[in-house]
Amino acid sequence: MTAPAIDRLHLSPDAADLLFREARTANAFTDEPVTDDHVRAIYDLAKYAPTAMNQQPLRLVLVRSEEARARLVGHMAPGNRDKTAAAPLVAIVAADTRFHDELPRVFPHAPGARELFADPHARENSARFNAAIQLGFLILAIRAAGLAAGPMGGYDAAGINADFFPDGEHRVVAVVNIGRPAADAWRDRLPRLAYDEVVTTV
Amino acid sequence: MTAPAIDRLHLSPDAADLLFREARTANAFTDEPVTDDHVRAIYDLAKYAPTAMNQQPLRLVLVRSEEARARLVGHMAPGNRDKTAAAPLVAIVAADTRFHDELPRVFPHAPGARELFADPHARENSARFNAAIQLGFLILAIRAAGLAAGPMGGYDAAGINADFFPDGEHRVVAVVNIGRPAADAWRDRLPRLAYDEVVTTV
Repeated sequence: MTAPAIDRLHLSPDAADLLFREARTANAFTDEPVTDDHVRAIYDLAKYAPTAMNQQPLRLVLVRSEEARARLVGHMAPGNRDKTAAAPLVAIVAADTRFHDELPRVFPHAPGARELFADPHARENSARFNAAIQLGFLILAIRAAGLAAGPMGGYDAAGINADFFPDGEHRVVAVVNIGRPAADAWRDRLPRLAYDEVVTTV
Repeated sequence: MTAPAIDRLHLSPDAADLLFREARTANAFTDEPVTDDHVRAIYDLAKYAPTAMNQQPLRLVLVRSEEARARLVGHMAPGNRDKTAAAPLVAIVAADTRFHDELPRVFPHAPGARELFADPHARENSARFNAAIQLGFLILAIRAAGLAAGPMGGYDAAGINADFFPDGEHRVVAVVNIGRPAADAWRDRLPRLAYDEVVTTV
């Protein structure tokens, strides 16, 4: 379906379809592997996401060993276990609550930036929020690589944090299945809110 | 600079440049107006962002009247006031903490979904996190429309919430300047974390 405002787009229709309009959360994948080269290409786009004070809190754990996969599956909600076990690649997306240690390097023109994040509670909120912006970019970068993403929020977060981040400084914010979508990967598109429900003018 | 893994991208180089590699946070804009048609085209892409249980908490307030613009500028941090006053369009991005009232319609196959969000604190956290994923999509959709985004986090959040959302049910999560970038819109790109600082394998 062509949107009425399509002539306002600068992006090509093919790219808009690939990234937004025809892309979907995938629930099943082919056996084709997702290589580290794929993930590097994905990160080479996703890394440009804007974050507050360039804090870049997102971290990715690629779960490649059978042993780690089994541990992760055990932390997932029952409805997510089979697809977590079967996806070509599963990535744990986490927010690094120690992002502020990097600010002198990644936000060099504001020497006092690190000290603005002295409060651990405010810092964790900032890490989660900005990692979510990066997660939006990451999902679109996965699609830009011709792959599909299956982000999941149903898991035992405390269990994943303790098991995969024993430093106590990271918080899982999503688990994402990545791969080439299988023919039966898609559920029906869920309804989106209408423009007038979302956008108001003052 | 061509990334070594570029051959792993399915998206065209032009589109990757438009959305990710050459796109930047803009700090100055031309006088060209941003119309409601632009915003409709942007929303027609951004609305497809995946959110937990399809909750879609993001709301946009387009600040078009001089009076509302003046009020908003008064809530911004000093360093953000001039650009907020000058941008062709300024949008307040908010998370609707009552998103769960829409779940019976937007997540219809799970009749009990609304009740999972009975706790207001957990609901607000979910609204903020998922609105941030949508904000990532929104920024890329603005670029897809050939425009530039200038997201800002420096403002008096309590002041904006009280002034623009007297229902007490919305939380500002960003203020975004939108427009055609001026020639002097760009600062130097800030450093991004390297792949090996962000991605680990287990």
